[in-house]
Amino acid sequence: MPVAVDAMGGDHGPQVLVEGAILAAKEFGVESILVGDEAILRKALEESGEQGLPIGIKHASQVVEMDEAPSEALRKKKNSTIKVAFELVKEGNASSVVSAGNSGATMASALVTLGRIKGVRPAIATVMPTLKEPVVMIDVGANVDCKPIHLYQFAVMGNVFAREHLKKPNPRIGLLSIGEEDTKGNVQVKKAYDMLVESGLNFVGNVEGREVFKGDVDVIVCDGFVGNICLKLSEGLAESILQMLKQEIEGSLVASMGYALAKKAFKKFRKKVDYAEYGGAPLLGINGIAIICHGRSKARAIKNAIKVANDLSDVNLNLLLERSL
Amino acid sequence: MPVAVDAMGGDHGPQVLVEGAILAAKEFGVESILVGDEAILRKALEESGEQGLPIGIKHASQVVEMDEAPSEALRKKKNSTIKVAFELVKEGNASSVVSAGNSGATMASALVTLGRIKGVRPAIATVMPTLKEPVVMIDVGANVDCKPIHLYQFAVMGNVFAREHLKKPNPRIGLLSIGEEDTKGNVQVKKAYDMLVESGLNFVGNVEGREVFKGDVDVIVCDGFVGNICLKLSEGLAESILQMLKQEIEGSLVASMGYALAKKAFKKFRKKVDYAEYGGAPLLGINGIAIICHGRSKARAIKNAIKVANDLSDVNLNLLLERSL
Repeated sequence: MPVAVDAMGGDHGPQVLVEGAILAAKEFGVESILVGDEAILRKALEESGEQGLPIGIKHASQVVEMDEAPSEALRKKKNSTIKVAFELVKEGNASSVVSAGNSGATMASALVTLGRIKGVRPAIATVMPTLKEPVVMIDVGANVDCKPIHLYQFAVMGNVFAREHLKKPNPRIGLLSIGEEDTKGNVQVKKAYDMLVESGLNFVGNVEGREVFKGDVDVIVCDGFVGNICLKLSEGLAESILQMLKQEIEGSLVASMGYALAKKAFKKFRKKVDYAEYGGAPLLGINGIAIICHGRSKARAIKNAIKVANDLSDVNLNLLLERSL
Repeated sequence: MPVAVDAMGGDHGPQVLVEGAILAAKEFGVESILVGDEAILRKALEESGEQGLPIGIKHASQVVEMDEAPSEALRKKKNSTIKVAFELVKEGNASSVVSAGNSGATMASALVTLGRIKGVRPAIATVMPTLKEPVVMIDVGANVDCKPIHLYQFAVMGNVFAREHLKKPNPRIGLLSIGEEDTKGNVQVKKAYDMLVESGLNFVGNVEGREVFKGDVDVIVCDGFVGNICLKLSEGLAESILQMLKQEIEGSLVASMGYALAKKAFKKFRKKVDYAEYGGAPLLGINGIAIICHGRSKARAIKNAIKVANDLSDVNLNLLLERSL
């Protein structure tokens, strides 16, 4: 079944989304349906010069802007690309949704159109680079106020996702806190700790901020407030270090050459930190599969996200999640 | 009045603490009282070869170990160095306390011996490097569960500290959250936002994780759970980036030379991130002045902390805090 691509969202307009769909079809043979203004999309497809690819178009006349309030936008724009994309999934005409548009609207549309797995708080998972293997961080922004049971659910969902997506047979689960001992943490974390000990998961205990990038766990569990701050702090710090480094070694020729190389390494690092490069961030816990991409995603990131959406449908991720929860 | 130095705490033993006191006396003329085993301290002072410096010794027979549970240690060890140090302040024989020992025990001793400013939740402030001027982050670990009023208090205390310590006439106060709009954040942050708008402080609104190292605000307010994770995440990420960089540019001569320089820059950065280098992290909101140093502090960090403790006493920080709160 094809992946429904919200083809009008994101900072770079429909072109990169069309291109992403073309790449996914050519490289991985993944089918997709571009959702958006039919005339614009047809023209973009034609101009690409590619023919015979398994890419469909579904017309939708409205777009939720990046800075629009999600709930209001969904109420007013009944024919928005993001809503129509989720309807395709609901009707059984698409397997999943990929969007680089307004992420709040993507979440809201998913919930309204597909609903959630019973009793579950959907969460956004993201894959971060570490010194060793990548790590899944969940939640990075869907839930700012969490109860212990929600942290527990994030752990269960992160476990399934790391197993299926990162191919870890028995993912090590860590709980983000301020000390390794079970007595360390805020009220929610301390209670979630006890639940995770009893969970049957491969729970390795609390992990501190210092451990996030070491790669000694496969899943890091936190509430969406903390996770979102950590994610953005990491991006910001990586950039700041590059700047500080530049200030530090400016003026010397050898240093400048070293700097050019360092910069290359940094760019690579930044790419790694940018979750879009890892194929977007899945919204887990809804009745369906949706991948949230960064607004600044380019075609390559969209291609990866389409592939991840297709892979997660193939393994029937939602059924696996439902069974685990 | 002298600064009371907990002379037996920290990872490196009394030697670095004695040396720190000597440096503070020689470079800044700051008096201190070393609290600990009198024989050991007297010997260390004599062996330094320095004479006539304004450094006293106060005997205390017990030491709270780094991994000891604070409350139990304080109950059992009535003559611990940290307790005796705070008693010197209470009796009016010292202006303030500096400790590189068990930070939980330092906080607990401060509360038990000196008490807190009425109605206030004491918090740990730390100074972080940014692309521009350093920024104060508060709280970085004293309070894991906070109400909006506590975040408000942290802002007021951070404001006074940034004004007095970083010499900012009208510090810009930011509230750490997941979006700039006032509707973004968890329950506590959203309510604290409204209080800060009304506070008369130079409140610039929410700051995202991405903004922390940009240096566009002077004080970043958060709860101790988030702050501690951010602080440690920053340290860990800086180290990981250095490692990744090493992997990336290994093997080329020019790159290696560049790497050596990059490493130097990184070390400098790491030093900046290490709050001990900035003169330790003050515990604000107690009835007195206490500086918490990292366990791994060397003499230079202790020297700086003694100076900061002395400076904050000179400006009568506590009176300024009381008036502001």
